[in-house]
Amino acid sequence: MPSVLQLVTTAAQLREALEPLRRAGRKIGLVPTMGALHEGHISLVRAAKAQCDATVVTIFVNPSQFGQGEDLAKYPRTLEADLAKLAACGADLVLAPASDDVYRPGHTTWVEVGAVAERLEGKFRPGHFRGVATIVLKLFNMSRAEVAFFGQKDYQQALVIQQMVEDLNVPVEVRICPIVREADGLAMSSRNAYLGPAARARATVLWKSLELAQELVGRGERNALAVLEPMRQMIGAAGAQGAAGEVRVDYVALVDPQTLEPVCEIRGRTLAVLAVWIGKTRLIDNCFLNPDEP
Amino acid sequence: MPSVLQLVTTAAQLREALEPLRRAGRKIGLVPTMGALHEGHISLVRAAKAQCDATVVTIFVNPSQFGQGEDLAKYPRTLEADLAKLAACGADLVLAPASDDVYRPGHTTWVEVGAVAERLEGKFRPGHFRGVATIVLKLFNMSRAEVAFFGQKDYQQALVIQQMVEDLNVPVEVRICPIVREADGLAMSSRNAYLGPAARARATVLWKSLELAQELVGRGERNALAVLEPMRQMIGAAGAQGAAGEVRVDYVALVDPQTLEPVCEIRGRTLAVLAVWIGKTRLIDNCFLNPDEP
Repeated sequence: MPSVLQLVTTAAQLREALEPLRRAGRKIGLVPTMGALHEGHISLVRAAKAQCDATVVTIFVNPSQFGQGEDLAKYPRTLEADLAKLAACGADLVLAPASDDVYRPGHTTWVEVGAVAERLEGKFRPGHFRGVATIVLKLFNMSRAEVAFFGQKDYQQALVIQQMVEDLNVPVEVRICPIVREADGLAMSSRNAYLGPAARARATVLWKSLELAQELVGRGERNALAVLEPMRQMIGAAGAQGAAGEVRVDYVALVDPQTLEPVCEIRGRTLAVLAVWIGKTRLIDNCFLNPDEP
Repeated sequence: MPSVLQLVTTAAQLREALEPLRRAGRKIGLVPTMGALHEGHISLVRAAKAQCDATVVTIFVNPSQFGQGEDLAKYPRTLEADLAKLAACGADLVLAPASDDVYRPGHTTWVEVGAVAERLEGKFRPGHFRGVATIVLKLFNMSRAEVAFFGQKDYQQALVIQQMVEDLNVPVEVRICPIVREADGLAMSSRNAYLGPAARARATVLWKSLELAQELVGRGERNALAVLEPMRQMIGAAGAQGAAGEVRVDYVALVDPQTLEPVCEIRGRTLAVLAVWIGKTRLIDNCFLNPDEP
């Protein structure tokens, strides 16, 4: 196992670097990222380090998962700082490829995951999960990792990948790690860097509304609308404090954690999930509601 | 390496059977088939045996590559005879799974290969290559074979799979083996079993028309239409001998072997390819035209 962080920039180099580890029967863990690393990513690296013999982190801002008019061009790219963080937390190998090493000219193959990719984010970001599924399968194949780590923050993404892995018999185990939050509850996200001070303050409403949902369910509320309505009101009130249109909801939903279908009554473990624009920044968050817990 | 043919019926059993081979660093070769094995398939097994340490043959009539109204239900199933042939030619391991072990309930993920899958067969069998790409990727993942063997008879299929392998970084090498023909030139195919004696005689026109193309190009013809027209006439004449509509052309084409785009002039290696109905049986065949060879 390499004792210092090794950086490779092509799939061929990655394969070469991993070959001796594979031959030695080492368990390879993969943490796919788009860089601009924060504590959420680092928690995935720590999980990989704890559970595998070698930890591979990929840093690639995948163009195919951004829609037209989305933030591909301005997405934060902080490779130097990312490498320093990865070295500090003991990652073994980083793949940071150029776009044409990943998508050669003439690339035409895409993975379509179906129903679970079509709800929620899929409705608001058509084609997004096609891009996600395709790049993640490519990274699985490049690394031939045995375990891959994803954050619960992108819950639907993790579900889409699990569906793909099962449907296509991909020989990898997908592990989902808990959301890491700032002190005030805001879920860590590379896109938080877009937020100015006023927007940053307003952004706490995502987590606050999820806490409200937990509180209502904790008090015995089982009707989904009776939970969603106060959440929406709270988010609307956060918007009312700023300029018109400063806070805009794409969706706030209570869904079945496996199918992502909306639930009417909260029976059994339910996912509260939302996507909200704070100014020009689109943020997502989620948490589980556990009606059967005391 | 097992010294007698081992039959497994689930992906889990296959993984278990292959685990010791993989740990020992054996090179695994895969021959995916739909059964009803003939000399064409056996030639693939022989190639795998010659080039790999262990040869896995899969027998699965993949429903997702058959269109509505196609011959899924009547496709020949001859497992006992297939196993005898595979034992005789020294295959090591056969996976013959049930359909619901391959496609679990709730399967929704599909691989779409794009342009190269949309021409020729793709036009006449919409969705066919989506089914082919998906099952083949599943079999690659189940077996984690290092090399996989396909016949040139299904040339476009092999091309679609190569495109998928490159685009998705699948860690497998695809090898294409020559077409095996009957004494009179008819390409071996499981579907030849559908042909009655009269149709069987008429079916030789596929290869005869390809030979005609080779002959014309050998004599210096470089104009595609001047090759295609006599081919079509020959095929039409074969039909005229039987009942009306007894021979029907889906396509006869001269195409670039990489893109499958039609060529106007035969410059460099060109693929002559055709799909023809003989009664209710649809047959395909192809050959290369090499204008630069003496």
